[in-house]
Amino acid sequence: MSLKFYYDLMSQPSRAIYVFLKVTGIKFESKPTILGKLGHKSEEFLKINPIGQVPVIDDNGFIVRESVGILRYLCREKGIPDHWYPKESKAQAKLDEFIEWQHIGLRLPCAFYFKLKWLEPRLTGEKPLESEIERFQPLMLDSCDLMETFWLNHNKKFLFGNHLTIADLLAVMELEQPKLCGFDPRQGRPRLAAYMASVKSETSPYYDEANKIIDKLASMSKL
Amino acid sequence: MSLKFYYDLMSQPSRAIYVFLKVTGIKFESKPTILGKLGHKSEEFLKINPIGQVPVIDDNGFIVRESVGILRYLCREKGIPDHWYPKESKAQAKLDEFIEWQHIGLRLPCAFYFKLKWLEPRLTGEKPLESEIERFQPLMLDSCDLMETFWLNHNKKFLFGNHLTIADLLAVMELEQPKLCGFDPRQGRPRLAAYMASVKSETSPYYDEANKIIDKLASMSKL
Repeated sequence: MSLKFYYDLMSQPSRAIYVFLKVTGIKFESKPTILGKLGHKSEEFLKINPIGQVPVIDDNGFIVRESVGILRYLCREKGIPDHWYPKESKAQAKLDEFIEWQHIGLRLPCAFYFKLKWLEPRLTGEKPLESEIERFQPLMLDSCDLMETFWLNHNKKFLFGNHLTIADLLAVMELEQPKLCGFDPRQGRPRLAAYMASVKSETSPYYDEANKIIDKLASMSKL
Repeated sequence: MSLKFYYDLMSQPSRAIYVFLKVTGIKFESKPTILGKLGHKSEEFLKINPIGQVPVIDDNGFIVRESVGILRYLCREKGIPDHWYPKESKAQAKLDEFIEWQHIGLRLPCAFYFKLKWLEPRLTGEKPLESEIERFQPLMLDSCDLMETFWLNHNKKFLFGNHLTIADLLAVMELEQPKLCGFDPRQGRPRLAAYMASVKSETSPYYDEANKIIDKLASMSKL
């Protein structure tokens, strides 16, 4: 098959692209890459991405790295309905506003909180530093509040109207990650809760399929 | 004038767009916005960007936020030579790889190091936490090394060949910021040093114009 997809479902952007490929019906060869020395840091994978990060696609020999770049490329190349990433210049600029904001505005605080509270203690056996939690937890809460009060401050189903865009998939997967540390961004944020439910329902059953590993780990953490 | 540009030259992405507008000859109305309560957190500015961040453009009433989104919009709308952000799909995907990587791959560590070592001590009068410096300094060094060994691992003048792209402006402005803390990424990285010199020379005199405030503050810090 011409399109190979390297991913790990523990990675938020990997899950966004996984759901995108499934929902849009793009055929791909699955290359699950377990994060760690034998996976994304293996000699074989570093040939594909010397930076050692998933997701990556190999489209008939053409390698594309970085989730936002991958999604834009797939929208251009694979005959995807326009609502996913509109070609019209102003609509595209509005989508880009969110997509470019979310890297440091949403992904960074949610992913760092997950890393500090869940991942690093499991790798090192050491407790997280309170000073670091104190820096990143408020940033994460502010980001979730901005989702509720600014980005979703309208009566539409999704971020940019009543059709899904690539922005929605990127957003929800970042918002799902801190569940591993027992944090649910939906609580006290009714618009965000309704929005996440809409994305999940619109992308069913792939949403649950993509999140099955973190859902399982989250339920184990509660025991 | 139809295009208004809100910026602060202390902000790396503001400087990237400033140089872009000047070099490409796009006419704009200058709206310098001093960072702080009277500037980007003022009631007037929050109407333009409720997130309270510069840069922002107002193109005849159409507001665009987020530097990468702004640059992509300007390339589409203002008849800019194609080399700045190529329309050809694969070339664009390669540029997107860098642009999307740099948010967390380059901007985050350089900007956080600057924030911890320079900005916060000046705002609070308190010394930075060693544990935080120990986290972000190695990330910054790794990013600079990746610039040297991966992104610039070719014999071309700029990141994507012998013509400037929007990726170059975004990159160099992040790399200039840690000079305020006495860190020069050029040292021990000959490709990066030659590259930054090429971007500066190609965009003269606007490069120095954009950096004049941080250059002055950096020289004051040395005294």
